[in-house]
Amino acid sequence: MATSSTNLCFPSLPPLTTSKFKIGLCQLSVSSDKNQNIIHARNSMKVAVDQGARLVVLPEMWNCPCSSDYFAKFAEDFSHEDSSPSFKMLSEVASCYRITIVGGSMPEWCSGRLHNTCCVFGPDGKLKAKHRKIHLFDIDIPGKFSFKESDSFAAGEELTIVNTEVGRIGIGICHDMRFPELAMLYKEKGAHLICYPGAFNMSTGELLWELVQRGRAIDNQLFVATCSPSRDSAASYTIWGHSTVVGPFGEIIATSGPEETVVVAEIDYSEIQLRRESLPLEKQKRSDIYRFVDMRDQS
Amino acid sequence: MATSSTNLCFPSLPPLTTSKFKIGLCQLSVSSDKNQNIIHARNSMKVAVDQGARLVVLPEMWNCPCSSDYFAKFAEDFSHEDSSPSFKMLSEVASCYRITIVGGSMPEWCSGRLHNTCCVFGPDGKLKAKHRKIHLFDIDIPGKFSFKESDSFAAGEELTIVNTEVGRIGIGICHDMRFPELAMLYKEKGAHLICYPGAFNMSTGELLWELVQRGRAIDNQLFVATCSPSRDSAASYTIWGHSTVVGPFGEIIATSGPEETVVVAEIDYSEIQLRRESLPLEKQKRSDIYRFVDMRDQS
Repeated sequence: MATSSTNLCFPSLPPLTTSKFKIGLCQLSVSSDKNQNIIHARNSMKVAVDQGARLVVLPEMWNCPCSSDYFAKFAEDFSHEDSSPSFKMLSEVASCYRITIVGGSMPEWCSGRLHNTCCVFGPDGKLKAKHRKIHLFDIDIPGKFSFKESDSFAAGEELTIVNTEVGRIGIGICHDMRFPELAMLYKEKGAHLICYPGAFNMSTGELLWELVQRGRAIDNQLFVATCSPSRDSAASYTIWGHSTVVGPFGEIIATSGPEETVVVAEIDYSEIQLRRESLPLEKQKRSDIYRFVDMRDQS
Repeated sequence: MATSSTNLCFPSLPPLTTSKFKIGLCQLSVSSDKNQNIIHARNSMKVAVDQGARLVVLPEMWNCPCSSDYFAKFAEDFSHEDSSPSFKMLSEVASCYRITIVGGSMPEWCSGRLHNTCCVFGPDGKLKAKHRKIHLFDIDIPGKFSFKESDSFAAGEELTIVNTEVGRIGIGICHDMRFPELAMLYKEKGAHLICYPGAFNMSTGELLWELVQRGRAIDNQLFVATCSPSRDSAASYTIWGHSTVVGPFGEIIATSGPEETVVVAEIDYSEIQLRRESLPLEKQKRSDIYRFVDMRDQS
């Protein structure tokens, strides 16, 4: 089967014993051939692993073009692994290389509804968490750009924060990044890193993509990683690209251009403690004046 | 008296009839001579008014060096206008030119405590609002930079949002800007513009000053204006400068370098509506998942 290739496996890597590890962002080109996308993602993850990545992040819609013409057709029901080749490949690659994968996003078919879903796998190949995009991207700039994601997808209902072998990771997908509330809740819940697979377009990409992710990092004093598909200038939805890793002081640790590439960078979680000790924003918050509430904790 | 000079007055300006107006940011040099600072601020505001500014913003600590050696000595009790020359000058200039003034900040003496306080005056010269900095700047980066504002000042206890002739304005002072919660509450309460008089230092200025204010603007789809003292490289606390006006798409409308200057720029509040109609972030928030609470409304 084209999506299985155990001969690519590395021997097991030792468990993470320090706060440092390498993250790999696979900024993939995405075609209208799903099997090809799966092979391509697998190969790209190998490149990241070859460079030492212990955590690999894929883009939003890495297995499917960002177009409503494709979402339903490319969707998989993850509860049936045998008929879900994208899901299965991620699981295999995670266990094969003993890495953690934040599997970008894929169209998911569940109970008669489509979701834009990110699956997180541990080094044992098991699904650790599943995030369904909770803020769908509906935008209308007359004469310039219009997109209504909620015509295609149903929104998720839950935050997703997960303990992995490479830290405690909060997940958001693309437009989820625009809402500071989500990042603030992940911070409160102890996230070291927030991963946002995303596919900003050209109209918002240049002005907002970097700004917003740096903002989430600096406001919450944690790491942020984004992973985008690469740009296909001929596509109807032209993507900004520029997958990036940002540190807890808002500093850009690594980034890319719009082209297909693999970004590998070192993350050192001890930076979080350092920043928070220097400037304890959390302690300085005025909970007597404002408070932020996780409504799921209230019920 | 050096701080009074009615001959500088303009005839009354007509009331604001459109959503457009000019804002002036007086990026002042600040000396250890308070009277000189008062004269200097008055003259600088005239420059802004001469260029059409209807709203003038002054820097944090425009009448006093940013040093704990000066705060108590320079502080005024605003309840006694005759012994409060800084306060009195702001009131006079506002009524003289028929402008709104967001009066940066000054050390305020009240009930045996010092506050870092911003006074807002209307075109009638009356005090419209008073914001006492609610997040004090305590930072310690070993070997690099240390500052403990809470050794000198007591923190304020209230948000400050005020209806003026140039829109509904939320006020924060410097480190208040680092807390997204404050800006989010101002947005909820209908602010068109948030003014942050501030005095970021060199260690945080380059990386954070622009990033944070653009973040507040884009996350809340409103205008943000910052006003800093100019840089005095010989001072113990070296200031970043770069007073800036940011639009509701995070775009920089006008900015400056570190030197003394007056930035005048046009603000058009119709941009807010435009941005919010194109991308209704407020409607897309998930109040079923998270909610933000003004604790003052709970009591």
